[in-house]
Order: sequence, then structure tokens, then C-alpha cells
Amino acid sequence: MSYDLWYWSGIPGRGEFVRLPLEAAGIPYKEKTWQRDGDDALVKDMARKRPDPPFAPPYLITQDGLVISQTANILLYLGEKHHQIAPRDVAGRHWVHQLQLTLMDLVAESHDVHHPIGVELYYEDQKPEAARRASGFRATRIPKFLDYFERVLTQRGPWLSGARHWSYADLSLFHVVEGLRFAFPRRLAALEPTYKQVWALRGKVEALPELQDYLHSERRLPFSDGLFRHYPELDGED
Amino acid sequence: MSYDLWYWSGIPGRGEFVRLPLEAAGIPYKEKTWQRDGDDALVKDMARKRPDPPFAPPYLITQDGLVISQTANILLYLGEKHHQIAPRDVAGRHWVHQLQLTLMDLVAESHDVHHPIGVELYYEDQKPEAARRASGFRATRIPKFLDYFERVLTQRGPWLSGARHWSYADLSLFHVVEGLRFAFPRRLAALEPTYKQVWALRGKVEALPELQDYLHSERRLPFSDGLFRHYPELDGED
Repeated sequence: MSYDLWYWSGIPGRGEFVRLPLEAAGIPYKEKTWQRDGDDALVKDMARKRPDPPFAPPYLITQDGLVISQTANILLYLGEKHHQIAPRDVAGRHWVHQLQLTLMDLVAESHDVHHPIGVELYYEDQKPEAARRASGFRATRIPKFLDYFERVLTQRGPWLSGARHWSYADLSLFHVVEGLRFAFPRRLAALEPTYKQVWALRGKVEALPELQDYLHSERRLPFSDGLFRHYPELDGED
Repeated sequence: MSYDLWYWSGIPGRGEFVRLPLEAAGIPYKEKTWQRDGDDALVKDMARKRPDPPFAPPYLITQDGLVISQTANILLYLGEKHHQIAPRDVAGRHWVHQLQLTLMDLVAESHDVHHPIGVELYYEDQKPEAARRASGFRATRIPKFLDYFERVLTQRGPWLSGARHWSYADLSLFHVVEGLRFAFPRRLAALEPTYKQVWALRGKVEALPELQDYLHSERRLPFSDGLFRHYPELDGED
């Protein structure tokens, strides 16, 4: 059995939040756009007439033909099927899903820093606005989210669920921190000493034996011009 | 049995997406901030030491003491407990949740139109940027989302789930359309003839017998300066 994963080729993007637990748990999946004209195939597949069309990638096609979309919903679905990536009790399931939704909010804000006026415009068309937004994002928003995850880890750690094993939310927090370190290296370096639990989790995920093969493979795509982008003019120590 | 609902007092906000299905299904709940100093009580409750702290309101306290937060996650939880507000099979559950998450993305974008630079600033401090963002939001983003829901309703209608009964996603789509009509009345009036299925659903929800009492009560708060705001300078026919 294998899942089909549809996402834009060439960037980690939101697809990466799905790839990490699939890879760590050894769940078979196939990247449908990792071929010639992959993104064209994605656009074509999105337009297909089907009862459950996705609004946007990523989406997963299950063995029984379901189309599951919205990143956090895909992880919720996978967590219910594969108990090694999420708690199975009601409290744990909704708790980890809540954390994932909060991370997705941070991801959306991270993207909007370089696109504050519109996704339909280039960054070059909104540079002064991006600089203004980046300043508040660095000073206020990143700390607000990191405060929250530090608080959760301090109370329940070392993993976000409180269980003795990682869940998809831990892998996602790792990836978000990596994305922010890529996009805002000076700011994240300045914040690191304050968020000891978050950075400890980052290190633990990076060292997971079950992720080593993936993290050092070519399947793990580098950050570039996707959600997380590095524009030096948007970074700063404070 | 009764749920406790915590949300900022005085605005529909994200709390409204939770209130609508609770009211329509007659599920008992208590508004915890509808009292003197309610918002202070909310801030205090948010800071309480607990194993599952919410990142932001709204959040629901269940009878067994669980704290369920993130709007779409609250609806997912309620849908699993109360089968009159969501399909109970795996496909239907994830389908309706996906629609809700897509609606929450539209809600976040609707908010960011008047706060493109930062939530920590006043609208008055970001008026030129808001005007630019509003133009793209009206021309591109609203139609993109409405196209999607029109497509879904055309295929599965009259309700989003494809079932013969409304789900929480239908009530949410109704509320989002109402919010957009409040914020951008000229634009929405121009779009109405194009999105016949969406407007038909809007009318069907508004006429639901089980919602009449609520919709005409004082519990149904009017739009004002929350997520959806009406600034005439941000509206336009195109």
C-alpha cells in the first residue's frame, strides 16, 4: 500500500510537514510531481472533476481513493491510521491537532512577511511593506509563538504531546524552527538562548535515528523561494 | 451537561463559528466572558497553569475538563460528539474539516486586509497598505474562494457535505458570506449573480427553523470592529 502525495515540486513548502512523519514512520508514499512536467500534472489533477476536490496542495490520495487536503487535516488523517505518529486517545488527538493548527498559523504569517500586500504580486512589488511587516514579525510575533511552545514543552516535555514518543507536531515544530532559522538567521540566533526547550526539541528531532536516512537524502529539499525565504533586508537581531 | 465557551466578549469573531452549530443543534453551552470584566477573566484564564493551554481564543472546556482550542478543531471535536452537526464516517469527517480549514484561511485573509502590516498596529497606521491589499483581495482572493465553494456545491449541493442535512461547514460558509457582505457590500453585491449556489446556501441557512431563535436573539452579535470590518475606502465593485 502506498499514498500518493501531490505538492509543488522543488520546494519543501507545506508538503514537508506531511513528508517528515511519513518518512520517520516508514509509511510508503509516492511524490506525484517528481517527474517531468510535474507541476503541470498537479494543475491538471487539481482541475479534475471529483466529489472531493482540494482547494490547494498538498493533498493525499489514499488507497481507497479519498482526497485528503489541508496540511493539518492530512496529518490528522494519517495520525488516526498510523498510531506511531500521533496519540490515539481523544484528548491527545485534538491536542496535537491544535498544536499543528497553531504551527500552520505561524507558517502562514511567515509567508506573509514577504507577501504582505498580496500573493498575486512579486516580493519586489511590496518590499517597503514587507520590511515594515518583518519588523513586527521579528519583534512580536515570533516570540509570541515561541513563548507558547516553550511553555508547553516546559510543562509536558520533552515531546509536545506529553507522551514518551514524538508526534507529527514535534516534527512540524522542528521544521518551522529550521524555516525561521533559514529566513531570519540573525533574529533566531538572538532568540535561541531564551527558548531552551524549543531548541532542545529541535536537536532531538534532528538526531532521530528514524529520520537520518531522509534528512541526508536528496528527497529532503533545501529551503529556497517557498514559504520561508531569506531576504537579508528583512532580518535583524531584534 | 454544558460546555464552557471562552471568547472575547462583544464581537462575533471566531467564536461565532462555534456558536452557530451549538445553537442550531440545541447543545447547551455557557459564554464565560458575558459578564462584567469578562475579557479580563479570559486573559486570566488563558494564563492559568494547565496541561493543555490554548494559544488563543476561542476555546471550549468540555465536561471532562479538556481544553479544546483552534476554531476548526473545536468544530471537529463537537462533530465527533454530536452527530447532528457533522458526518460521522471517515471520508465525511475529513471532508467537512477540510472545508472548515479552507474557510478559516479565508477568514484570516479577510482580517489581514485591514491589518496587512501587523496585528499589533491600528488600522489607521496601515491605511495605504490596507487599500492596496484590499484591491487584490476583492479582485482575486474572494473569487478564488467563492469559485471553490460554488464548484463544491454544484457537484454535491445543496449542502457542502453532500448529505441531506447541514453540517458546521455550511453554517460557517453562511457566516463568512455575511461577514464579507458586511465588510465589502459593493463587491459582494457585484459577485452575487455569479455564485448562485453559494447564495442559495446562504439563504437556506438563514431560513433554518432551528436557527431562527438564535438569529433573532441578542446573543447573535452584530459585526463591528472584529475580523470583518467595514471601511468604505476598502470596498469597491471590482
